[in-house]
Amino acid sequence: MVKTVYVASLVSSIVVNLLFMIINIYVGGEWSLSWSSKAAAEAEAVADIACSGHGRAYLDGLVGDENEPVCECNTCYTGPNCSHFIPHCTADADSGDPLFLEPFWMQHSTSSALVVSGWHRMSYNFHDNTLISQHLESLIRKLHAFVGNAVTQDRYIVFGAGSTQVLSAAAYALSLANSSSSHSPTRVVASVPYYALYKQQVEYFNSEKFKYEGDAHTWRNRSESDASTNVIEFVTSPNNPDGLLNKAVLHGPNVKTIYDRAYYWPHFTPIPAPADEDLMVFTLSKLTGHAGSRFGWAVVKDETVFNKMVLHMQVNSIGVSKDTQLRAFKLLKAILEEGAQIFDFAYQTMKSRWERLATTLSFSNRFSLQKIIPQYCFFYNKVRESSPAYAWVKCEKEEDKDCYTVLKAANIIGRKGNVFGSEDNYVRLSLVRSQDDFDILIQRLQKLVSEEDGAISM
Amino acid sequence: MVKTVYVASLVSSIVVNLLFMIINIYVGGEWSLSWSSKAAAEAEAVADIACSGHGRAYLDGLVGDENEPVCECNTCYTGPNCSHFIPHCTADADSGDPLFLEPFWMQHSTSSALVVSGWHRMSYNFHDNTLISQHLESLIRKLHAFVGNAVTQDRYIVFGAGSTQVLSAAAYALSLANSSSSHSPTRVVASVPYYALYKQQVEYFNSEKFKYEGDAHTWRNRSESDASTNVIEFVTSPNNPDGLLNKAVLHGPNVKTIYDRAYYWPHFTPIPAPADEDLMVFTLSKLTGHAGSRFGWAVVKDETVFNKMVLHMQVNSIGVSKDTQLRAFKLLKAILEEGAQIFDFAYQTMKSRWERLATTLSFSNRFSLQKIIPQYCFFYNKVRESSPAYAWVKCEKEEDKDCYTVLKAANIIGRKGNVFGSEDNYVRLSLVRSQDDFDILIQRLQKLVSEEDGAISM
Repeated sequence: MVKTVYVASLVSSIVVNLLFMIINIYVGGEWSLSWSSKAAAEAEAVADIACSGHGRAYLDGLVGDENEPVCECNTCYTGPNCSHFIPHCTADADSGDPLFLEPFWMQHSTSSALVVSGWHRMSYNFHDNTLISQHLESLIRKLHAFVGNAVTQDRYIVFGAGSTQVLSAAAYALSLANSSSSHSPTRVVASVPYYALYKQQVEYFNSEKFKYEGDAHTWRNRSESDASTNVIEFVTSPNNPDGLLNKAVLHGPNVKTIYDRAYYWPHFTPIPAPADEDLMVFTLSKLTGHAGSRFGWAVVKDETVFNKMVLHMQVNSIGVSKDTQLRAFKLLKAILEEGAQIFDFAYQTMKSRWERLATTLSFSNRFSLQKIIPQYCFFYNKVRESSPAYAWVKCEKEEDKDCYTVLKAANIIGRKGNVFGSEDNYVRLSLVRSQDDFDILIQRLQKLVSEEDGAISM
Repeated sequence: MVKTVYVASLVSSIVVNLLFMIINIYVGGEWSLSWSSKAAAEAEAVADIACSGHGRAYLDGLVGDENEPVCECNTCYTGPNCSHFIPHCTADADSGDPLFLEPFWMQHSTSSALVVSGWHRMSYNFHDNTLISQHLESLIRKLHAFVGNAVTQDRYIVFGAGSTQVLSAAAYALSLANSSSSHSPTRVVASVPYYALYKQQVEYFNSEKFKYEGDAHTWRNRSESDASTNVIEFVTSPNNPDGLLNKAVLHGPNVKTIYDRAYYWPHFTPIPAPADEDLMVFTLSKLTGHAGSRFGWAVVKDETVFNKMVLHMQVNSIGVSKDTQLRAFKLLKAILEEGAQIFDFAYQTMKSRWERLATTLSFSNRFSLQKIIPQYCFFYNKVRESSPAYAWVKCEKEEDKDCYTVLKAANIIGRKGNVFGSEDNYVRLSLVRSQDDFDILIQRLQKLVSEEDGAISM
């Protein structure tokens, strides 16, 4: 009897020890957290609020009566769980809010999660006394090399708060360089249709250094008698709004070019060759979809121009938030660890959206889309079409001069042609927004086209 | 015997069940993490690298041969664990890098930890279509009410990338308002000694809207014949560099005032009353010490001015990074949950630093400090002295015209008086940096003072 008790005790002791071992393994492994565990549990609890797939809750978002996080619903959904569709709601295709990439990050939650200690990078400067994370810079170089969309060897890289801040830094840097040889302000041009921000920034800052001059083609035709004036040309390639791989219109010793390469990723375009311009601007917004993080960068050939852009960031905001730089670091690290996954996701999403849109409008005599020319893409090693971020819709009929109003009457909000320096028979429709926004856009367009006189039968 | 076996089995079964319960409790509680646990473990591992208290490792910091994070040492320390003091190294008292608050956050690691999902706030906008977190705004109002340092009722709040961006937004907003009534550019002034950034920004942006004019007192004496010119006065209170609670020098219908209230916290000054000016600028840097996060805000009385500042942020950078806003949210939440703790820590630290400095220089005939006038502080409900962020050191001797060079010869880097519009017999020494930097500064000063001819015997 005593022996049996010993055996039973031994068994129970072994079991107990095994269980303690298991606990210790967990505690010694991923579960052994101290200061971060409360914040992690909070973040996961918020992330678990599903909002029916038509919204999301945030740590710093809307809260209910008990101060608990509640759903922030997508445009056309409402209710506590965003489960109610609002029947006659407006299709929002206005801004280029790149939420089409949100599902990718929800699927890659582990690799993209970020934990920040309370004392992370409190200093103005990094350890090398710059405002720029060398780690992040090196990830950016690796990413460009992986995608093959930009030459970064022997180039400088400067960061800004989105491409927004980088673009104005570039304009200031190139104007300063220009203005030493003359007293007349540098003229800033872009070819129509152009991204409105270039004009808006130059006019807003109202600097004595530069003036917005308008269309690059108009300037070229006028400027032969005026070869001494310094000019900056903004070239957006692929272009916003029409997706074309634009090239500079102006050339010559008095011309500086700023290449806005925001959309030069496999998401939106074939990559026929690595971009190799003197000053190229990129942004996280249109790469990972994190527009809210406000992170952009320029790849710059000339050291003097680079130094002037660094000064701009210093005077403007003492560089880019270290929190933003850490987030960008984590996201780019996740991308690089997972090979082509984000590009495949983004390309497939944009391609399928473009095809649905093109099919929808193929039944119309009233609306047309920009033409897409297939090219060889060195990223995918095949000829492919572009899968543009925006539709540049033309109202073809004489009476539809105000295309924006035509679409608005059909419950669709686009962006007016004249915002881009074009005629108002054009409207830009954003294709990069959430799946909900895109689905509703297609529904509204289908209805509009089906009501056309003489529409091609579906 | 059989009974005994049953009893033993029962006991072991109960033990096993208890242990499973314990595991389940942990798993059901804080340890039940999925996507965040890897990132949390990484962040804690990096935080565990102690660096002898003279440095720190970061997630996005220096790495060793095996790509493992390694220590980034404070200025005068080196070695793999930052344990080696560099004997003749220079005392850096130049920039206002507010690392004196770093130990506070290390002590409050749980409340300040932040976990960010990969899909957190990807949109340009918050749910209400603004660029400003309403939650963060409401914490800022609560904090001002708790401290009693600013009136925020019926005021607007706008965010920027540090006070840096907020200050230029304010200058643009007030210039635009002014310039409608005249064609002459708005003159920007500040009383000497002033924070150099005001001048630097106005000159850098080179806008047709405003010109930097220099000292406010000089302008007042000159301007009586010129009452129609619009003027913006920057008033820094407490002042950088000298800590005085400055008031506006200029008044009148053509004068707008921007109050830079960066240092108006119990850390640095008695709080005699809540600030109640039309436009007040604050920054996270000098409140929590997170200079690297680049977060500032303005409290604005006039709606038109507020809207213009919002436009400035839009055109400049499409608002402040959502990552930064989330970080600021977490930090202010931690502060408010813990009552007066951060203020006690900051005040005690700055007070003790000032006392050590004052004691050190009390033995000198060559160097003097600004005078500190005690005032009643409504935060601490007592008369207290200020505990300034900077020492405004005067070289008293005729031959020490270049005070910066005098200190530099003693291995101390300050900031030259002329940077602040003053004479060069003044130097600013920063007292807000890391404890290491401050300790070395005191050592160097003690040596310098002890070598003075006719120094008061220690």
